[in-house]
Amino acid sequence: MNYSPLLTRLIQSLRRLPGVGPKSAQRIAFHLLERDREGANAVAESLQAAMQGIQHCQDCRMFSEGPRCEFCQAASRDDSLLCIVEGPADVLAVEQGANYRGRYFVLMGHLSPLDGIGPEDLGLDLLTQRLDRGGIKEVIIATNPTVEGEVTAHYVAELARSRNTRVTRIAHGVPMGGELEYVDSGTLAHAFAGRQQV
Amino acid sequence: MNYSPLLTRLIQSLRRLPGVGPKSAQRIAFHLLERDREGANAVAESLQAAMQGIQHCQDCRMFSEGPRCEFCQAASRDDSLLCIVEGPADVLAVEQGANYRGRYFVLMGHLSPLDGIGPEDLGLDLLTQRLDRGGIKEVIIATNPTVEGEVTAHYVAELARSRNTRVTRIAHGVPMGGELEYVDSGTLAHAFAGRQQV
Repeated sequence: MNYSPLLTRLIQSLRRLPGVGPKSAQRIAFHLLERDREGANAVAESLQAAMQGIQHCQDCRMFSEGPRCEFCQAASRDDSLLCIVEGPADVLAVEQGANYRGRYFVLMGHLSPLDGIGPEDLGLDLLTQRLDRGGIKEVIIATNPTVEGEVTAHYVAELARSRNTRVTRIAHGVPMGGELEYVDSGTLAHAFAGRQQV
Repeated sequence: MNYSPLLTRLIQSLRRLPGVGPKSAQRIAFHLLERDREGANAVAESLQAAMQGIQHCQDCRMFSEGPRCEFCQAASRDDSLLCIVEGPADVLAVEQGANYRGRYFVLMGHLSPLDGIGPEDLGLDLLTQRLDRGGIKEVIIATNPTVEGEVTAHYVAELARSRNTRVTRIAHGVPMGGELEYVDSGTLAHAFAGRQQV
């Protein structure tokens, strides 16, 4: 014998969530049924509302509830700066950490030929259009310093340079508060290569 | 700035799932929005269907879609045996592993005074009624061999004995295929204390 059909279906569907395996799916299902039915309904409703109401911003590809996101709508931002990031979480990280007041472009991923993710999946045609519209003086590339992020950075840099736009990459090196002794050799090599006169 | 209201609400609600923290909630939300909107809707629908359609079996407290679960309805099972387990997953484990064809009673937890879980939360009044109805010749206690499980087992055993029912506890000892060298001392002590003549 097995669980009842509705319970089996619930456990199966929960496994579609990233990071949730068969045991976790079961634990989540039992927890919700036994202790938090209200929470389960809240999750269901917020999922449906989000899937219906959230789309991509037509200018920067950020998740947005209207055709253009808050960051693209904000009148106070500097239109001449465009920061390229991999995902929505990066936008928030830059907003919170860096003192940046320009616009964003969110790739929603990185180039990864092995996973079949090419330039068209990252909206680079949209980025090209945006560069061609003019007004952007500097493209700041803030993709992650991983292999895929670097490849993506290189590709975007080529694209922007071919449109005669100044391209910069955020600095990578020893993190503030970090100790040289504990920094990995790749980062340290990068920090030395990127040294600046003081 | 922050994420849009629908996205914020989605991330917040996903945090109600057990084992999902702020970073995981964000990752799940982005994954579903970006790559699996169909999956998100499937999860939402199965959650709602489950919360609406699943209740507790009125006889054994197992999750059930009708007033009585499959296990209690099955005519082929032995009414004189009642196996007491902590949760629904334990019912399936016994079904798959043990050659047991009696009935079940699912406590849906264990006694845990520190968490405020007392006998009334485990449906022990229902168990009492069931024992009083008669017909049960043996109560097999299969709660987990943890501190709470043992306390619960003791409590249930007292209850069943006071109704003049034979009470047994499943054996605990060295697991099959295990090596003495690697078994913890608690299990080994239990295995020696529970030795049987061959």
